[in-house]
Amino acid sequence: MTPDEQKKNALQGYIDAYNRNDLDAVLALYSDDASVEDPYGTPAKRGKAEIRAFYTEAMASGAKLQLDAPIRASHGDAAAITFTAALETGQGIVRVHVTDIMTFNDHGLINSMRAYFGPSDIEMPKG
Amino acid sequence: MTPDEQKKNALQGYIDAYNRNDLDAVLALYSDDASVEDPYGTPAKRGKAEIRAFYTEAMASGAKLQLDAPIRASHGDAAAITFTAALETGQGIVRVHVTDIMTFNDHGLINSMRAYFGPSDIEMPKG
Repeated sequence: MTPDEQKKNALQGYIDAYNRNDLDAVLALYSDDASVEDPYGTPAKRGKAEIRAFYTEAMASGAKLQLDAPIRASHGDAAAITFTAALETGQGIVRVHVTDIMTFNDHGLINSMRAYFGPSDIEMPKG
Repeated sequence: MTPDEQKKNALQGYIDAYNRNDLDAVLALYSDDASVEDPYGTPAKRGKAEIRAFYTEAMASGAKLQLDAPIRASHGDAAAITFTAALETGQGIVRVHVTDIMTFNDHGLINSMRAYFGPSDIEMPKG
């Protein structure tokens, strides 16, 4: 279990690294045997290679993340980010409203991520 | 698995019922064998009797919940609320910044709730 501040710093670093397309910095936050279930309800990506492939594709989309509320820590090994991913498309900006729950190992590395959003949380361009 | 709208309606109903101190309406959203881990990282309350005792105490505190972001659904059986619980004390208002993840059974009832907040998410009165 890591203290609140360590988990919050890691997740702020996650958002910052994602937004500057720093794939290696995002991957460095994960443990080697981590899992990423994004979206929750689909098969998890497991291990650095699958997670790298996932974020490579995600960053290639050009999506940028903005927190909708302060990062939450926990009394356990987890922390939460609630954010909107905005993605410029040829038809306008698509916004996806998401909450991620990350759990951390004893070294402060993310060992699981689950992304909670449904079809109704995808906001298509107006007009 | 329930569709997005059903889960979002249930969680909006949860917040509304909580804020009007309607204990029975909150409990009616839970399955008989549900678990409540609030905060995450502590032993879960299990079953209607333990959950009733938990919410009886929580409501007696006078805390009121306000969403900080729209409710998130999911591609699975879960949904998420990110909110602030505000509690009037003799020394001023204490605010607790929380994200809850609920999972739902096939009947649309909550069968698990986990509340993510840490010591650093408790904001004491100023001054």
